Amino acid sequence: MAPGPIRTALKVDLNKPASEQPQLHNRWHPDIPFAAIINPNETAHIQCVDWTGGQVKNDDSADDVLNADLTKIHYLSGPFEIPGSEPGDVICVEIQDVQPFPEQPWGFTAVFDKNNGGGFLDDLYPQAAKAIWDFEGIFCSSRHIPGVRFPGLIHPGIMGTAPSREVLEEWNRRERELINTTTLGRTVAHPPEPKSVHAGAATEEVKERVGREGARTVPGRPEHGGNCDIKNLSRGSKTYLPVHIKGAGFSVGDLHFSQGDGEISFCGAIEMAGVITVKISLMKNGMEILGMKSPIFLPGPVEPQFGPGRMLTFEGFSVDDAGKQHYLDVNVAYRQTCLRIIEYLKRFGYSGEQIYLLLSCAPIQGHVAGIVDIPNACTTIGLPMDIFDFDISPEGALKNGVKAVDMGSCAYTSNRK
Amino acid sequence: MAPGPIRTALKVDLNKPASEQPQLHNRWHPDIPFAAIINPNETAHIQCVDWTGGQVKNDDSADDVLNADLTKIHYLSGPFEIPGSEPGDVICVEIQDVQPFPEQPWGFTAVFDKNNGGGFLDDLYPQAAKAIWDFEGIFCSSRHIPGVRFPGLIHPGIMGTAPSREVLEEWNRRERELINTTTLGRTVAHPPEPKSVHAGAATEEVKERVGREGARTVPGRPEHGGNCDIKNLSRGSKTYLPVHIKGAGFSVGDLHFSQGDGEISFCGAIEMAGVITVKISLMKNGMEILGMKSPIFLPGPVEPQFGPGRMLTFEGFSVDDAGKQHYLDVNVAYRQTCLRIIEYLKRFGYSGEQIYLLLSCAPIQGHVAGIVDIPNACTTIGLPMDIFDFDISPEGALKNGVKAVDMGSCAYTSNRK
Amino acid sequence: MAPGPIRTALKVDLNKPASEQPQLHNRWHPDIPFAAIINPNETAHIQCVDWTGGQVKNDDSADDVLNADLTKIHYLSGPFEIPGSEPGDVICVEIQDVQPFPEQPWGFTAVFDKNNGGGFLDDLYPQAAKAIWDFEGIFCSSRHIPGVRFPGLIHPGIMGTAPSREVLEEWNRRERELINTTTLGRTVAHPPEPKSVHAGAATEEVKERVGREGARTVPGRPEHGGNCDIKNLSRGSKTYLPVHIKGAGFSVGDLHFSQGDGEISFCGAIEMAGVITVKISLMKNGMEILGMKSPIFLPGPVEPQFGPGRMLTFEGFSVDDAGKQHYLDVNVAYRQTCLRIIEYLKRFGYSGEQIYLLLSCAPIQGHVAGIVDIPNACTTIGLPMDIFDFDISPEGALKNGVKAVDMGSCAYTSNRK
Amino acid sequence: MAPGPIRTALKVDLNKPASEQPQLHNRWHPDIPFAAIINPNETAHIQCVDWTGGQVKNDDSADDVLNADLTKIHYLSGPFEIPGSEPGDVICVEIQDVQPFPEQPWGFTAVFDKNNGGGFLDDLYPQAAKAIWDFEGIFCSSRHIPGVRFPGLIHPGIMGTAPSREVLEEWNRRERELINTTTLGRTVAHPPEPKSVHAGAATEEVKERVGREGARTVPGRPEHGGNCDIKNLSRGSKTYLPVHIKGAGFSVGDLHFSQGDGEISFCGAIEMAGVITVKISLMKNGMEILGMKSPIFLPGPVEPQFGPGRMLTFEGFSVDDAGKQHYLDVNVAYRQTCLRIIEYLKRFGYSGEQIYLLLSCAPIQGHVAGIVDIPNACTTIGLPMDIFDFDISPEGALKNGVKAVDMGSCAYTSNRK
Repeated sequence: MAPGPIRTALKVDLNKPASEQPQLHNRWHPDIPFAAIINPNETAHIQCVDWTGGQVKNDDSADDVLNADLTKIHYLSGPFEIPGSEPGDVICVEIQDVQPFPEQPWGFTAVFDKNNGGGFLDDLYPQAAKAIWDFEGIFCSSRHIPGVRFPGLIHPGIMGTAPSREVLEEWNRRERELINTTTLGRTVAHPPEPKSVHAGAATEEVKERVGREGARTVPGRPEHGGNCDIKNLSRGSKTYLPVHIKGAGFSVGDLHFSQGDGEISFCGAIEMAGVITVKISLMKNGMEILGMKSPIFLPGPVEPQFGPGRMLTFEGFSVDDAGKQHYLDVNVAYRQTCLRIIEYLKRFGYSGEQIYLLLSCAPIQGHVAGIVDIPNACTTIGLPMDIFDFDISPEGALKNGVKAVDMGSCAYTSNRK
Repeated sequence: MAPGPIRTALKVDLNKPASEQPQLHNRWHPDIPFAAIINPNETAHIQCVDWTGGQVKNDDSADDVLNADLTKIHYLSGPFEIPGSEPGDVICVEIQDVQPFPEQPWGFTAVFDKNNGGGFLDDLYPQAAKAIWDFEGIFCSSRHIPGVRFPGLIHPGIMGTAPSREVLEEWNRRERELINTTTLGRTVAHPPEPKSVHAGAATEEVKERVGREGARTVPGRPEHGGNCDIKNLSRGSKTYLPVHIKGAGFSVGDLHFSQGDGEISFCGAIEMAGVITVKISLMKNGMEILGMKSPIFLPGPVEPQFGPGRMLTFEGFSVDDAGKQHYLDVNVAYRQTCLRIIEYLKRFGYSGEQIYLLLSCAPIQGHVAGIVDIPNACTTIGLPMDIFDFDISPEGALKNGVKAVDMGSCAYTSNRK
Repeated sequence: MAPGPIRTALKVDLNKPASEQPQLHNRWHPDIPFAAIINPNETAHIQCVDWTGGQVKNDDSADDVLNADLTKIHYLSGPFEIPGSEPGDVICVEIQDVQPFPEQPWGFTAVFDKNNGGGFLDDLYPQAAKAIWDFEGIFCSSRHIPGVRFPGLIHPGIMGTAPSREVLEEWNRRERELINTTTLGRTVAHPPEPKSVHAGAATEEVKERVGREGARTVPGRPEHGGNCDIKNLSRGSKTYLPVHIKGAGFSVGDLHFSQGDGEISFCGAIEMAGVITVKISLMKNGMEILGMKSPIFLPGPVEPQFGPGRMLTFEGFSVDDAGKQHYLDVNVAYRQTCLRIIEYLKRFGYSGEQIYLLLSCAPIQGHVAGIVDIPNACTTIGLPMDIFDFDISPEGALKNGVKAVDMGSCAYTSNRK
Repeated sequence: MAPGPIRTALKVDLNKPASEQPQLHNRWHPDIPFAAIINPNETAHIQCVDWTGGQVKNDDSADDVLNADLTKIHYLSGPFEIPGSEPGDVICVEIQDVQPFPEQPWGFTAVFDKNNGGGFLDDLYPQAAKAIWDFEGIFCSSRHIPGVRFPGLIHPGIMGTAPSREVLEEWNRRERELINTTTLGRTVAHPPEPKSVHAGAATEEVKERVGREGARTVPGRPEHGGNCDIKNLSRGSKTYLPVHIKGAGFSVGDLHFSQGDGEISFCGAIEMAGVITVKISLMKNGMEILGMKSPIFLPGPVEPQFGPGRMLTFEGFSVDDAGKQHYLDVNVAYRQTCLRIIEYLKRFGYSGEQIYLLLSCAPIQGHVAGIVDIPNACTTIGLPMDIFDFDISPEGALKNGVKAVDMGSCAYTSNRK
């Protein structure tokens, strides 16, 4: 009658390379064999490695970030077969909990080198940097960014279903077209890449095919979710995902202790290994019932709450640093909003890199405010003042003035210029 | 000892053309004479006309929208002199209340014709449409969009300080450059325009100069605020605005009963005439103290609250309707997110225009979720389920199915094709 | 098509004694004639006098409180006939707004003399005291209690339906029994009282009967609501009230700009005259459908929000000031909780009376925490720290110490001992 | 540099009687030896048994509840020495997390027999009953109360510091006086009791003294906290506790997965064994700095959030079931409020015992609304509608009617009459 402990549907070994663990994979492809089964309405634990598969260490140097091999990331747990699911169905993934491993109560946020990953502000902060975060129950703090501490909005960066062959071909078509036609002079998408491919327990033949055809895991994609990096897919949330193959092929990974809207430094969340607890229910013919083309979700009830009056909010517009006017460009506006916060917080003694890291991982609220008033898009970012152990409010600044104090340093590379 | 009623610092006459009322203006220019004085720390009412200056009527035809003269909009109340303020200072505008006029308890949301204003989705919805909203205290509902009712997050679409001559020249320079260099084949910005200029109580000579040089009011701008259309500048909020001229020249207008993030249909808020109550405090040398380049604000404590689990949230990615992959383009992603909601809600019987109008004005939460996972930007929009008087949840759809019922119609033009 | 301004269903004259206005009344009795009609689903404004009918003035003396005639209070607006309603039905009162009169933007909180009204702590604070609150939109502050300012949770202290003859007899029976049997040595209930009776537009004969039989308005009562003083019946709330007579006989009054849980100083809310806007819908046979014996309600969506981490919370137990142990007595525990806050806040310079007044009217959250752990009941009161313009947190006390500063004085009587 | 896993400061053995584990104790007494040390600002795990020490089983009979030995409860973990703490200091206990043991993902709520513990409504529900709750991450549900599921507001029922000899004597004096003078004809307090005393690792001599003098753990007490059963002492909360002996002697236990305000069925929380993670900081001379007589706390930021409009709220008054009027008696009012909810929910098919259990453990909000309107105290209880998987709203009842469906049964005793 009494249910026993919750079943762990998939385990990982943190002391073994992720690439050698057959229950993981790092490509999206319909032919990757199922790693395990999760039955509808069953509650199950799933263990996950961190998104670098252990490449980043708990130390005070960013050399590991600088040298990280970005072909060896995003080792996902799964794919899981969900018995009874067929194309056209929807699976509803209720996240019942996400926890770090007790023996590894820490995570990291990193700025990647402009030539190895980059990030949203890589022209300003082109060199690798890192902050280690220690977990204390629901809270985290970092020796690399003193003066802040906050509750995590813990979530997986990646949840998705396996693509069908048709979906996969569409992904490859459109991303290839972007690569072939871009004039931006930078990497705009990652094509299929045989190097470092991990196709789970696939045979060599399948693995070779997965390497040749399999979609990379970096972007989220509308047809199945994937690496959406949506901070609100936290405890208690329910995500509805379309099913494209028989058995669904649900995969999950890239756990985040916390993340801000935008995840701006690329490896911007607090990345960690850990355990996610899910219950997956099956909605037969759900894609038609819900008219669904992309995932939808309901956030959970235990998101950290700050009163609205405690969210110091910055505005940005689509006029760039050089004073150039852009036409309703939300990306430019969001970047400007970030820069306004960086300028504001620098006055307290933080370095630009520290703030860049902080904005990536703290629970900031990034909104599209106005998108129709030509030529200026306007975005806002709300920064919860209560994550700081000193007063950052404008009133405080007026009353007490602002003094830059020693805020230490984030981790840098040994060859930093 | 006892203070009397709160002073009304500026009145408007709703029965007279806005263009003939010298306490209003519709350009930003340092030479527009002050309309009145508001002393620091004084609480004052300011009356405002609606953003079309009364062109849109409470009826069931969108002909008024179709024919609206867009050179005759944004008649702002002010500019107000804030004694003691000088360039480099900051004024803090506390919004103590915003109310419609008791004798005019209604507002409107409109889709503008593609050739007369347009909007975020004007390729899909190119013709004018309109919804009238009736106010019932904190709530509003519309005979043109049955089945929904919500509390307003009432706010001004426009608050700003007068530009200095230098600031104005910079605006004109950069927007002119955009106009001169764009290849988009559409109006990308509005240059100074002598037609329908309203320079308040200015002399003819000054008025002529304002027409020639004065900045248009459509976009918000980083240096002073303006038409930011930020829904959270509601009751109880505090906005910090830079001062560029002696006396500040604070103006306000374009009151909204409610608006969603993005204000996507352009005239997307629930537009209304009414009264805003403000207290303005002065922060001497505030721009340096706060390191301020753009406005910052603290939201107020009485924003409508829906539990997080009641926000049905849709995801969108930078892959457009035609399946074309864009590079980290938040605008494309936000558009896709809107389209997902439109598809979802259509199944209940609403027309596309009804939903387009609804997304523009209901308190939807639009977030930048991920902006670094090449090539897909990801945005989310949370739709509060409790504004509907029927169950729109996925669970409800599963339990009861979805039936389209008669949802009436929004107001259309008489020559609609 | 377009609805005009909202109808005012009942007006009051603030310059005329409430006792002379036939649309008011100060007893509960089925024979009081209807003052006006409000149709089901109609939105209507109702004007209300303050609960003392104008006896308390906006000045710096509490003599008016000391001398207030407590037989001349609670002049309610109504009773309103709700056409179609019959005994056994339920009316749902949606409060769409509550506002002070624009020409009277202030209210008062008072401690009544122990011999004229008293209050929860009248043994400690037996003499009359008063604080005047000025309204600034959604906010209020008081020259008598400096350093605090908060958004109002505005609501009516009294809403009820007319009793049937049977209900009225039951009230009189049970309250008379309490009066006849009490051993407390203090006034425990107010029996019917012919003095100062106001029966609206009743004939002399009816008025005489109402004086003889009519229930006093001081307590709320389970059968119909009445003077419940529930702070959460604010903007946007819906209250379901049982109907006992044909036409319902809905009355409302005793408007509060704000109140804390318990309303401990008796006249503890911020009392004001003003306007309440309601929509009343009719639920035929609702008492049976809802199994209703007492009112139920849904709070509104715009209650002031403070993050939970900003609510400094005090604990109290059923051990009284003299160290006497009481058995699971929540009243004793709640009193102790109040005393703990008074002690805490006194250290900053406030007088006991100032804090007593503040706890009565500020949005404090009073909870029954534990009621079964013999012999100690435990209650908690959460005090929002953000209503103070200085830091009252324990961390702040630790960091900066606590210094009592000059906090001025509340209003006292001229003969204060 | 990198901290390792968090230290477990105290372990328990779930397979061994609590009475035989020297790191536990079940009395408050200054002479109980410290079980372990927790250093200031150290994060530490503390394991705890459930409050019955394992007497209640995960099955479908309430016989274990009926026969539970109430002298063998409340085995607390500790006391912990906090080095450096002295009488007059305050310790601040930050609760960083509370979790059930992974191998025991369930808890129980029980109604105790009127003659063995009883509860708030034991005259109506005099016989033992039980519900088992299964944990699914942050959620719980029960086979004994179908149709409900909610996120836990997980917390310890008991946290306290060791009493000094003087404090202990005061407790014994006042509780003895109550026992000696009560006329209630029921157990009103538990005096020191040598039977089943557990004094940790004390010598026989000390144990004998602790049995003779030691305070029982059932009630919370103002001087040190103890069994306060405050539901809001959850993840992220900070509780400030007075120190009465050198080393503080902090103890904790009685973990609850969830509890409603009042914990009305006595064993009303969802009782569980588990692990609490704390960080304790030391505030030297804190009692004077904070003017502290009783604990104060700040709730944590991740309390489950339901929108205010989703809290169906019931009112109760101090008129008892028999129609007797009581004088401002909050206990009577709270009881009536509970009864109103029981009546309301019974219509859906639940039994009285099921609802009694549910109100005890679900996150209901119990408020003291009005406490000064003689003779009626008024209390309210808010019930979150979203914990039900069907619509309990009045609107729903009106639209669809109310049908009682088969709601199964809670666990009863085998000899139930």
